[in-house]
Amino acid sequence: MRVEIWSDIACPWCYVGKARFDKALAGFAHRDRIEVVHRSFELDPHRAKDDVQPVLAMLSRKYGMSEAQAQAGEDNLGAQAAAEGLEYRTRGRDHGNTFDMHRLLHFAKAHGRQSELLDALYRANFAEERSVFTEGPERLVDLAAGAGLDAEAARAVLADPAAYADDVRADEEEAARLGATGVPFFVLDRRYGVSGAQPTEVFTQALTRAWADHSPLHLIDQGQRSGGAQACGPDGCAVPRS
Amino acid sequence: MRVEIWSDIACPWCYVGKARFDKALAGFAHRDRIEVVHRSFELDPHRAKDDVQPVLAMLSRKYGMSEAQAQAGEDNLGAQAAAEGLEYRTRGRDHGNTFDMHRLLHFAKAHGRQSELLDALYRANFAEERSVFTEGPERLVDLAAGAGLDAEAARAVLADPAAYADDVRADEEEAARLGATGVPFFVLDRRYGVSGAQPTEVFTQALTRAWADHSPLHLIDQGQRSGGAQACGPDGCAVPRS
Repeated sequence: MRVEIWSDIACPWCYVGKARFDKALAGFAHRDRIEVVHRSFELDPHRAKDDVQPVLAMLSRKYGMSEAQAQAGEDNLGAQAAAEGLEYRTRGRDHGNTFDMHRLLHFAKAHGRQSELLDALYRANFAEERSVFTEGPERLVDLAAGAGLDAEAARAVLADPAAYADDVRADEEEAARLGATGVPFFVLDRRYGVSGAQPTEVFTQALTRAWADHSPLHLIDQGQRSGGAQACGPDGCAVPRS
Repeated sequence: MRVEIWSDIACPWCYVGKARFDKALAGFAHRDRIEVVHRSFELDPHRAKDDVQPVLAMLSRKYGMSEAQAQAGEDNLGAQAAAEGLEYRTRGRDHGNTFDMHRLLHFAKAHGRQSELLDALYRANFAEERSVFTEGPERLVDLAAGAGLDAEAARAVLADPAAYADDVRADEEEAARLGATGVPFFVLDRRYGVSGAQPTEVFTQALTRAWADHSPLHLIDQGQRSGGAQACGPDGCAVPRS
Protein backbone atom coordinates (compact mmCIF):
# COMPACT_ATOMS: atom_id res chain seq x y z
CA MET A 1 0.00 0.00 0.00
CA ARG A 2 1.20 3.47 -0.78
CA VAL A 3 1.04 6.64 1.26
CA GLU A 4 1.89 9.93 -0.41
CA ILE A 5 2.57 12.96 1.78
CA TRP A 6 2.52 16.45 0.32
CA SER A 7 4.44 18.93 2.44
CA ASP A 8 6.70 21.95 2.45
CA ILE A 9 9.92 22.39 4.39
CA ALA A 10 8.63 25.81 5.47
CA CYS A 11 5.44 24.33 6.94
CA PRO A 12 5.56 23.80 10.70
CA TRP A 13 2.46 21.59 10.67
CA CYS A 14 4.20 19.35 8.16
CA TYR A 15 7.10 18.93 10.58
CA VAL A 16 4.70 18.03 13.39
CA GLY A 17 2.45 15.97 11.11
CA LYS A 18 5.31 13.83 9.83
CA ALA A 19 6.26 12.93 13.40
CA ARG A 20 2.66 11.98 14.20
CA PHE A 21 2.29 9.94 11.02
CA ASP A 22 5.65 8.22 11.60
CA LYS A 23 4.46 7.18 15.07
CA ALA A 24 1.26 5.73 13.65
CA LEU A 25 3.23 3.91 10.97
CA ALA A 26 5.76 2.52 13.48
CA GLY A 27 2.87 0.99 15.41
CA PHE A 28 1.04 -0.34 12.35
CA ALA A 29 1.15 -4.11 11.92
CA HIS A 30 1.63 -4.02 8.14
CA ARG A 31 4.22 -1.23 8.18
CA ASP A 32 6.68 -3.28 6.10
CA ARG A 33 4.20 -3.30 3.26
CA ILE A 34 3.58 0.45 3.25
CA GLU A 35 5.53 2.53 0.74
CA VAL A 36 5.82 6.18 1.77
CA VAL A 37 6.48 8.83 -0.87
CA HIS A 38 7.04 12.49 -0.01
CA ARG A 39 5.71 14.97 -2.53
CA SER A 40 6.39 18.64 -3.11
CA PHE A 41 4.13 21.53 -2.18
CA GLU A 42 5.40 25.09 -1.93
CA LEU A 43 3.50 27.37 0.40
CA ASP A 44 5.10 30.41 -1.16
CA PRO A 45 6.10 29.49 -4.73
CA HIS A 46 6.28 33.06 -6.00
CA ARG A 47 8.79 34.30 -3.43
CA ALA A 48 12.11 35.24 -5.03
CA LYS A 49 15.04 33.04 -4.08
CA ASP A 50 16.90 35.93 -2.46
CA ASP A 51 13.84 37.24 -0.59
CA VAL A 52 14.44 35.81 2.88
CA GLN A 53 12.63 37.37 5.81
CA PRO A 54 12.21 36.79 9.54
CA VAL A 55 9.06 34.68 10.02
CA LEU A 56 7.47 37.18 12.40
CA ALA A 57 7.94 40.12 10.04
CA MET A 58 6.62 38.04 7.13
CA LEU A 59 3.54 36.96 9.09
CA SER A 60 2.70 40.44 10.32
CA ARG A 61 3.21 41.96 6.86
CA LYS A 62 1.24 39.26 5.03
CA TYR A 63 -1.65 38.82 7.44
CA GLY A 64 -1.75 42.12 9.24
CA MET A 65 -1.26 40.48 12.63
CA SER A 66 0.92 42.07 15.26
CA GLU A 67 4.36 40.62 15.87
CA ALA A 68 3.15 39.62 19.33
CA GLN A 69 0.30 37.62 17.77
CA ALA A 70 2.72 36.01 15.33
CA GLN A 71 5.06 35.18 18.23
CA ALA A 72 2.17 33.60 20.15
CA GLY A 73 1.51 31.39 17.14
CA GLU A 74 5.17 30.35 17.05
CA ASP A 75 5.10 29.57 20.79
CA ASN A 76 1.99 27.48 20.32
CA LEU A 77 3.61 25.59 17.45
CA GLY A 78 6.71 25.09 19.60
CA ALA A 79 4.55 23.51 22.32
CA GLN A 80 2.84 21.19 19.82
CA ALA A 81 6.23 20.19 18.39
CA ALA A 82 7.63 19.57 21.88
CA ALA A 83 4.66 17.29 22.60
CA GLU A 84 5.87 15.13 19.71
CA GLY A 85 9.44 15.15 20.98
CA LEU A 86 10.60 17.62 18.34
CA GLU A 87 12.87 20.59 18.87
CA TYR A 88 11.41 23.89 17.69
CA ARG A 89 13.13 27.25 17.66
CA THR A 90 10.38 29.72 18.49
CA ARG A 91 12.61 32.80 18.15
CA GLY A 92 14.30 34.17 15.06
CA ARG A 93 13.32 31.60 12.43
CA ASP A 94 13.36 32.89 8.85
CA HIS A 95 11.28 32.18 5.77
CA GLY A 96 12.14 31.88 2.09
CA ASN A 97 11.77 29.99 -1.15
CA THR A 98 11.97 26.18 -0.85
CA PHE A 99 12.04 25.15 -4.52
CA ASP A 100 15.70 24.02 -4.47
CA MET A 101 15.06 21.93 -1.36
CA HIS A 102 12.17 20.21 -3.12
CA ARG A 103 14.42 19.49 -6.12
CA LEU A 104 16.94 18.00 -3.72
CA LEU A 105 14.23 15.85 -2.11
CA HIS A 106 13.44 14.36 -5.52
CA PHE A 107 17.12 13.61 -6.00
CA ALA A 108 17.09 11.95 -2.56
CA LYS A 109 14.03 9.92 -3.54
CA ALA A 110 15.92 8.56 -6.55
CA HIS A 111 18.58 7.36 -4.12
CA GLY A 112 16.24 6.02 -1.43
CA ARG A 113 17.04 8.74 1.13
CA GLN A 114 14.00 10.98 0.85
CA SER A 115 12.59 10.57 4.35
CA GLU A 116 16.06 11.06 5.86
CA LEU A 117 16.67 14.27 3.91
CA LEU A 118 13.23 15.63 4.75
CA ASP A 119 13.87 15.01 8.45
CA ALA A 120 17.23 16.78 8.11
CA LEU A 121 15.67 19.77 6.35
CA TYR A 122 12.88 20.08 8.92
CA ARG A 123 15.36 19.87 11.78
CA ALA A 124 17.61 22.44 10.12
CA ASN A 125 14.75 24.85 9.45
CA PHE A 126 12.78 24.50 12.66
CA ALA A 127 15.31 23.51 15.31
CA GLU A 128 18.72 24.91 14.39
CA GLU A 129 20.06 28.43 14.69
CA ARG A 130 21.61 28.47 11.22
CA SER A 131 19.36 29.35 8.30
CA VAL A 132 18.59 26.97 5.44
CA PHE A 133 17.85 29.99 3.23
CA THR A 134 20.75 32.39 3.51
CA GLU A 135 23.94 30.35 3.46
CA GLY A 136 23.82 29.26 -0.17
CA PRO A 137 23.87 25.75 -1.63
CA GLU A 138 26.69 24.40 0.55
CA ARG A 139 24.37 24.39 3.57
CA LEU A 140 22.00 22.12 1.66
CA VAL A 141 24.87 20.00 0.35
CA ASP A 142 25.95 19.39 3.97
CA LEU A 143 22.43 18.38 4.95
CA ALA A 144 22.22 16.04 1.95
CA ALA A 145 25.53 14.44 2.86
CA GLY A 146 24.32 14.05 6.43
CA ALA A 147 21.28 12.23 5.08
CA GLY A 148 23.53 9.73 3.32
CA LEU A 149 23.68 11.29 -0.14
CA ASP A 150 26.74 11.91 -2.25
CA ALA A 151 27.82 15.53 -1.69
CA GLU A 152 29.22 16.02 -5.19
CA ALA A 153 26.03 14.74 -6.83
CA ALA A 154 23.86 16.90 -4.53
CA ARG A 155 25.99 19.93 -5.44
CA ALA A 156 25.45 19.20 -9.14
CA VAL A 157 21.67 18.99 -8.63
CA LEU A 158 21.62 22.33 -6.82
CA ALA A 159 23.80 23.94 -9.49
CA ASP A 160 21.44 22.90 -12.29
CA PRO A 161 18.10 24.74 -11.89
CA ALA A 162 16.40 22.30 -14.28
CA ALA A 163 17.34 19.18 -12.30
CA TYR A 164 14.18 17.63 -10.87
CA ALA A 165 12.31 20.91 -11.43
CA ASP A 166 9.63 19.13 -13.48
CA ASP A 167 9.15 16.60 -10.68
CA VAL A 168 8.46 19.37 -8.19
CA ARG A 169 5.92 20.98 -10.51
CA ALA A 170 4.29 17.64 -11.34
CA ASP A 171 3.78 16.99 -7.62
CA GLU A 172 2.21 20.39 -7.18
CA GLU A 173 -0.15 19.88 -10.11
CA GLU A 174 -1.12 16.49 -8.72
CA ALA A 175 -1.87 18.07 -5.33
CA ALA A 176 -4.19 20.55 -7.02
CA ARG A 177 -5.93 17.72 -8.92
CA LEU A 178 -6.47 15.87 -5.64
CA GLY A 179 -7.99 18.95 -4.08
CA ALA A 180 -5.21 19.75 -1.62
CA THR A 181 -5.14 23.44 -0.76
CA GLY A 182 -2.85 23.16 2.23
CA VAL A 183 -0.28 20.85 3.76
CA PRO A 184 0.53 18.42 5.19
CA PHE A 185 -1.78 16.37 2.99
CA PHE A 186 -1.70 12.58 3.24
CA VAL A 187 -3.11 10.32 0.53
CA LEU A 188 -3.47 6.58 1.15
CA ASP A 189 -3.69 4.42 -1.97
CA ARG A 190 -5.35 7.35 -3.75
CA ARG A 191 -8.53 6.45 -1.88
CA TYR A 192 -8.28 8.07 1.51
CA GLY A 193 -7.00 11.49 2.42
CA VAL A 194 -5.92 13.09 5.68
CA SER A 195 -5.61 16.85 5.66
CA GLY A 196 -3.43 18.51 8.26
CA ALA A 197 -1.35 17.33 11.19
CA GLN A 198 -4.10 15.21 12.72
CA PRO A 199 -3.46 13.31 15.96
CA THR A 200 -1.52 10.05 15.67
CA GLU A 201 -4.67 7.99 16.27
CA VAL A 202 -6.30 9.52 13.18
CA PHE A 203 -3.36 8.31 11.09
CA THR A 204 -3.68 4.89 12.70
CA GLN A 205 -7.37 4.86 11.80
CA ALA A 206 -6.63 5.97 8.23
CA LEU A 207 -3.94 3.28 7.79
CA THR A 208 -6.29 0.64 9.18
CA ARG A 209 -9.21 1.62 6.95
CA ALA A 210 -7.11 1.99 3.81
CA TRP A 211 -5.43 -1.34 4.50
CA ALA A 212 -8.77 -3.11 4.96
CA ASP A 213 -9.97 -1.59 1.70
CA HIS A 214 -6.73 -2.40 -0.13
CA SER A 215 -8.55 -4.75 -2.46
CA PRO A 216 -6.86 -6.72 -5.15
CA LEU A 217 -6.98 -5.11 -8.57
CA HIS A 218 -10.11 -5.53 -10.60
CA LEU A 219 -8.84 -7.01 -13.87
CA ILE A 220 -10.32 -5.78 -17.11
CA ASP A 221 -9.86 -7.89 -20.22
CA GLN A 222 -11.53 -8.71 -23.46
CA GLY A 223 -13.64 -11.42 -21.86
CA GLN A 224 -15.26 -13.86 -24.28
CA ARG A 225 -13.19 -12.70 -27.18
CA SER A 226 -9.95 -13.56 -25.42
CA GLY A 227 -7.54 -15.79 -27.28
CA GLY A 228 -5.21 -15.98 -24.29
CA ALA A 229 -3.27 -13.18 -22.66
CA GLN A 230 -0.63 -11.65 -24.89
CA ALA A 231 2.01 -11.37 -22.26
CA CYS A 232 5.52 -12.48 -21.35
CA GLY A 233 6.56 -13.99 -18.04
CA PRO A 234 9.54 -15.80 -16.56
CA ASP A 235 8.38 -18.83 -18.54
CA GLY A 236 8.35 -17.08 -21.88
CA CYS A 237 5.97 -15.16 -24.09
CA ALA A 238 2.50 -16.37 -25.04
CA VAL A 239 2.25 -17.18 -28.72
CA PRO A 240 -1.09 -15.87 -29.95
CA ARG A 241 -3.63 -18.15 -31.56
CA SER A 242 -3.94 -16.76 -35.01
CA MET B 1 -5.50 9.75 -12.69
CA ARG B 2 -2.44 7.58 -12.75
CA VAL B 3 -1.59 4.63 -14.97
CA GLU B 4 1.42 2.49 -14.07
CA ILE B 5 2.79 0.13 -16.71
CA TRP B 6 5.16 -2.66 -15.73
CA SER B 7 7.21 -3.91 -18.66
CA ASP B 8 10.57 -5.23 -19.80
CA ILE B 9 12.58 -4.03 -22.77
CA ALA B 10 13.07 -7.68 -23.73
CA CYS B 11 9.31 -8.33 -23.84
CA PRO B 12 7.79 -8.18 -27.32
CA TRP B 13 4.24 -8.00 -25.96
CA CYS B 14 5.26 -4.95 -23.95
CA TYR B 15 6.40 -3.26 -27.17
CA VAL B 16 3.09 -4.08 -28.85
CA GLY B 17 1.05 -3.36 -25.72
CA LYS B 18 2.54 0.11 -25.25
CA ALA B 19 1.53 1.03 -28.81
CA ARG B 20 -2.02 -0.22 -28.19
CA PHE B 21 -2.28 1.60 -24.87
CA ASP B 22 -0.82 4.80 -26.38
CA LYS B 23 -3.51 4.69 -29.08
CA ALA B 24 -6.25 4.30 -26.48
CA LEU B 25 -4.78 7.16 -24.47
CA ALA B 26 -4.47 9.43 -27.53
CA GLY B 27 -8.19 8.97 -28.14
CA PHE B 28 -9.22 9.39 -24.50
CA ALA B 29 -11.00 12.65 -23.71
CA HIS B 30 -9.25 13.18 -20.38
CA ARG B 31 -5.78 12.25 -21.62
CA ASP B 32 -4.28 15.50 -20.30
CA ARG B 33 -5.20 14.46 -16.79
CA ILE B 34 -3.65 10.99 -17.00
CA GLU B 35 -0.18 10.54 -15.56
CA VAL B 36 1.66 7.54 -17.04
CA VAL B 37 4.52 5.95 -15.12
CA HIS B 38 6.60 3.11 -16.52
CA ARG B 39 7.80 0.56 -14.01
CA SER B 40 10.50 -2.08 -14.13
CA PHE B 41 9.98 -5.80 -14.55
CA GLU B 42 12.79 -8.13 -15.65
CA LEU B 43 11.73 -11.29 -17.42
CA ASP B 44 15.15 -12.81 -16.89
CA PRO B 45 16.66 -11.16 -13.79
CA HIS B 46 19.17 -13.92 -13.09
CA ARG B 47 20.86 -13.85 -16.48
CA ALA B 48 24.46 -12.68 -16.23
CA LYS B 49 25.18 -9.36 -17.88
CA ASP B 50 27.60 -10.93 -20.37
CA ASP B 51 25.31 -13.85 -21.21
CA VAL B 52 23.79 -12.67 -24.49
CA GLN B 53 22.19 -15.23 -26.78
CA PRO B 54 20.26 -15.33 -30.03
CA VAL B 55 16.55 -15.31 -29.17
CA LEU B 56 15.82 -18.48 -31.13
CA ALA B 57 18.59 -20.46 -29.44
CA MET B 58 17.47 -19.17 -26.02
CA LEU B 59 13.84 -20.12 -26.67
CA SER B 60 14.63 -23.58 -27.95
CA ARG B 61 17.06 -24.26 -25.09
CA LYS B 62 14.75 -22.93 -22.38
CA TYR B 63 11.44 -24.35 -23.59
CA GLY B 64 12.51 -27.34 -25.62
CA MET B 65 10.84 -26.01 -28.77
CA SER B 66 12.46 -26.40 -32.15
CA GLU B 67 14.13 -23.37 -33.71
CA ALA B 68 11.43 -23.52 -36.41
CA GLN B 69 8.72 -23.26 -33.74
CA ALA B 70 10.56 -20.38 -32.12
CA GLN B 71 10.89 -18.69 -35.50
CA ALA B 72 7.16 -19.10 -36.13
CA GLY B 73 6.52 -17.32 -32.82
CA GLU B 74 8.77 -14.47 -33.87
CA ASP B 75 7.02 -14.22 -37.24
CA ASN B 76 3.68 -14.10 -35.49
CA LEU B 77 4.90 -11.37 -33.14
CA GLY B 78 6.24 -9.50 -36.16
CA ALA B 79 2.80 -9.60 -37.75
CA GLN B 80 1.11 -8.34 -34.57
CA ALA B 81 3.68 -5.55 -34.29
CA ALA B 82 3.18 -4.60 -37.95
CA ALA B 83 -0.57 -4.39 -37.36
CA GLU B 84 0.21 -1.64 -34.81
CA GLY B 85 2.51 0.15 -37.23
CA LEU B 86 5.65 -1.04 -35.43
CA GLU B 87 8.80 -2.34 -37.07
CA TYR B 88 9.86 -5.76 -35.85
CA ARG B 89 13.00 -7.63 -36.81
CA THR B 90 11.94 -11.27 -36.94
CA ARG B 91 15.43 -12.58 -37.75
CA GLY B 92 18.53 -12.53 -35.60
CA ARG B 93 17.30 -10.66 -32.51
CA ASP B 94 19.27 -11.37 -29.35
CA HIS B 95 18.41 -11.61 -25.67
CA GLY B 96 20.19 -10.54 -22.50
CA ASN B 97 20.02 -8.85 -19.14
CA THR B 98 18.03 -5.59 -19.05
CA PHE B 99 18.82 -4.34 -15.53
CA ASP B 100 21.00 -1.42 -16.70
CA MET B 101 18.32 -0.31 -19.13
CA HIS B 102 15.78 -0.27 -16.31
CA ARG B 103 18.16 1.83 -14.20
CA LEU B 104 18.47 4.22 -17.13
CA LEU B 105 14.67 4.40 -17.44
CA HIS B 106 14.46 5.55 -13.83
CA PHE B 107 17.06 8.21 -14.55
CA ALA B 108 14.93 9.23 -17.57
CA LYS B 109 11.85 9.38 -15.35
CA ALA B 110 13.60 11.83 -13.05
CA HIS B 111 14.14 14.04 -16.11
CA GLY B 112 10.70 13.65 -17.64
CA ARG B 113 11.88 11.55 -20.61
CA GLN B 114 10.84 8.06 -19.56
CA SER B 115 8.31 7.30 -22.28
CA GLU B 116 10.69 8.62 -24.94
CA LEU B 117 13.57 6.44 -23.72
CA LEU B 118 11.37 3.37 -23.46
CA ASP B 119 10.22 3.87 -27.06
CA ALA B 120 13.86 4.24 -28.12
CA LEU B 121 14.91 1.07 -26.28
CA TYR B 122 12.03 -0.95 -27.75
CA ARG B 123 12.81 0.29 -31.24
CA ALA B 124 16.51 -0.48 -30.79
CA ASN B 125 15.83 -3.96 -29.44
CA PHE B 126 13.02 -5.05 -31.71
CA ALA B 127 13.49 -3.12 -34.94
CA GLU B 128 17.17 -2.34 -35.42
CA GLU B 129 19.98 -4.58 -36.58
CA ARG B 130 22.40 -3.45 -33.88
CA SER B 131 22.19 -5.12 -30.48
CA VAL B 132 21.32 -3.29 -27.28
CA PHE B 133 23.16 -6.00 -25.32
CA THR B 134 26.59 -6.47 -26.87
CA GLU B 135 27.93 -3.03 -27.69
CA GLY B 136 28.55 -1.83 -24.14
CA PRO B 137 27.21 1.25 -22.38
CA GLU B 138 27.90 3.70 -25.22
CA ARG B 139 25.06 2.18 -27.23
CA LEU B 140 22.68 2.98 -24.37
CA VAL B 141 24.20 6.43 -23.90
CA ASP B 142 23.44 7.18 -27.57
CA LEU B 143 19.85 6.02 -27.15
CA ALA B 144 19.48 8.15 -24.01
CA ALA B 145 20.85 11.19 -25.82
CA GLY B 146 18.44 10.52 -28.69
CA ALA B 147 15.60 10.52 -26.16
CA GLY B 148 16.61 14.00 -25.01
CA LEU B 149 18.77 13.11 -22.02
CA ASP B 150 22.20 14.45 -21.18
CA ALA B 151 24.77 11.97 -22.50
CA GLU B 152 27.33 12.63 -19.77
CA ALA B 153 24.77 12.15 -17.00
CA ALA B 154 23.47 8.95 -18.65
CA ARG B 155 27.04 7.65 -18.87
CA ALA B 156 27.53 8.32 -15.16
CA VAL B 157 24.34 6.42 -14.31
CA LEU B 158 25.46 3.42 -16.37
CA ALA B 159 28.94 3.51 -14.81
CA ASP B 160 27.54 3.37 -11.27
CA PRO B 161 25.82 -0.01 -10.70
CA ALA B 162 24.05 1.36 -7.61
CA ALA B 163 22.41 4.27 -9.41
CA TYR B 164 18.64 3.72 -9.49
CA ALA B 165 19.17 0.03 -8.70
CA ASP B 166 16.89 0.27 -5.66
CA ASP B 167 14.17 1.85 -7.80
CA VAL B 168 14.25 -1.08 -10.20
CA ARG B 169 13.99 -3.56 -7.35
CA ALA B 170 11.23 -1.57 -5.63
CA ASP B 171 9.18 -1.67 -8.85
CA GLU B 172 9.66 -5.42 -9.10
CA GLU B 173 8.61 -5.96 -5.51
CA GLU B 174 5.56 -3.79 -6.07
CA ALA B 175 4.63 -5.85 -9.15
CA ALA B 176 4.77 -9.00 -7.04
CA ARG B 177 2.60 -7.39 -4.36
CA LEU B 178 0.03 -6.46 -7.01
CA GLY B 179 -0.02 -10.02 -8.29
CA ALA B 180 1.67 -9.42 -11.64
CA THR B 181 3.42 -12.55 -12.89
CA GLY B 182 3.97 -11.36 -16.43
CA VAL B 183 4.16 -8.19 -18.48
CA PRO B 184 2.96 -5.86 -19.81
CA PHE B 185 0.87 -5.19 -16.73
CA PHE B 186 -1.19 -2.01 -16.54
CA VAL B 187 -2.54 -0.61 -13.27
CA LEU B 188 -5.03 2.24 -13.29
CA ASP B 189 -5.28 4.23 -10.06
CA ARG B 190 -4.33 1.07 -8.18
CA ARG B 191 -7.93 -0.06 -8.71
CA TYR B 192 -8.05 -1.63 -12.13
CA GLY B 193 -5.55 -3.90 -13.82
CA VAL B 194 -5.02 -4.96 -17.41
CA SER B 195 -2.74 -7.93 -17.95
CA GLY B 196 -1.10 -8.38 -21.32
CA ALA B 197 -1.17 -6.56 -24.62
CA GLN B 198 -4.94 -6.44 -24.85
CA PRO B 199 -6.61 -4.80 -27.87
CA THR B 200 -6.77 -1.00 -27.89
CA GLU B 201 -10.51 -1.04 -27.12
CA VAL B 202 -9.86 -2.90 -23.86
CA PHE B 203 -7.51 -0.11 -22.79
CA THR B 204 -10.15 2.43 -23.78
CA GLN B 205 -12.68 0.54 -21.66
CA ALA B 206 -10.26 0.36 -18.73
CA LEU B 207 -9.49 4.10 -18.94
CA THR B 208 -13.20 4.90 -19.11
CA ARG B 209 -14.12 2.73 -16.14
CA ALA B 210 -11.22 3.86 -14.00
CA TRP B 211 -11.96 7.50 -14.85
CA ALA B 212 -15.64 7.11 -13.93
CA ASP B 213 -14.58 5.51 -10.66
CA HIS B 214 -11.89 8.12 -9.99
CA SER B 215 -13.75 9.35 -6.94
CA PRO B 216 -12.57 12.21 -4.85
CA LEU B 217 -10.59 11.17 -1.83
CA HIS B 218 -12.50 10.06 1.21
CA LEU B 219 -11.20 12.35 3.94
CA ILE B 220 -10.55 10.90 7.36
CA ASP B 221 -10.26 13.27 10.28
CA GLN B 222 -10.88 13.43 13.96
CA GLY B 223 -14.51 14.42 13.49
CA GLN B 224 -16.26 15.79 16.58
CA ARG B 225 -13.03 16.31 18.40
CA SER B 226 -11.65 18.59 15.70
CA GLY B 227 -10.28 21.92 16.80
CA GLY B 228 -9.62 23.01 13.21
CA ALA B 229 -7.22 21.53 10.74
CA GLN B 230 -3.60 21.92 11.75
CA ALA B 231 -2.32 22.80 8.32
CA CYS B 232 -0.55 25.50 6.35
CA GLY B 233 -1.71 26.94 3.05
CA PRO B 234 -0.91 29.88 0.80
CA ASP B 235 -2.78 32.02 3.34
CA GLY B 236 -0.70 30.95 6.30
CA CYS B 237 -0.71 28.33 9.02
CA ALA B 238 -3.69 27.58 11.22
CA VAL B 239 -3.05 28.54 14.82
CA PRO B 240 -4.47 25.79 17.01
CA ARG B 241 -7.07 26.50 19.64
CA SER B 242 -5.37 25.54 22.84
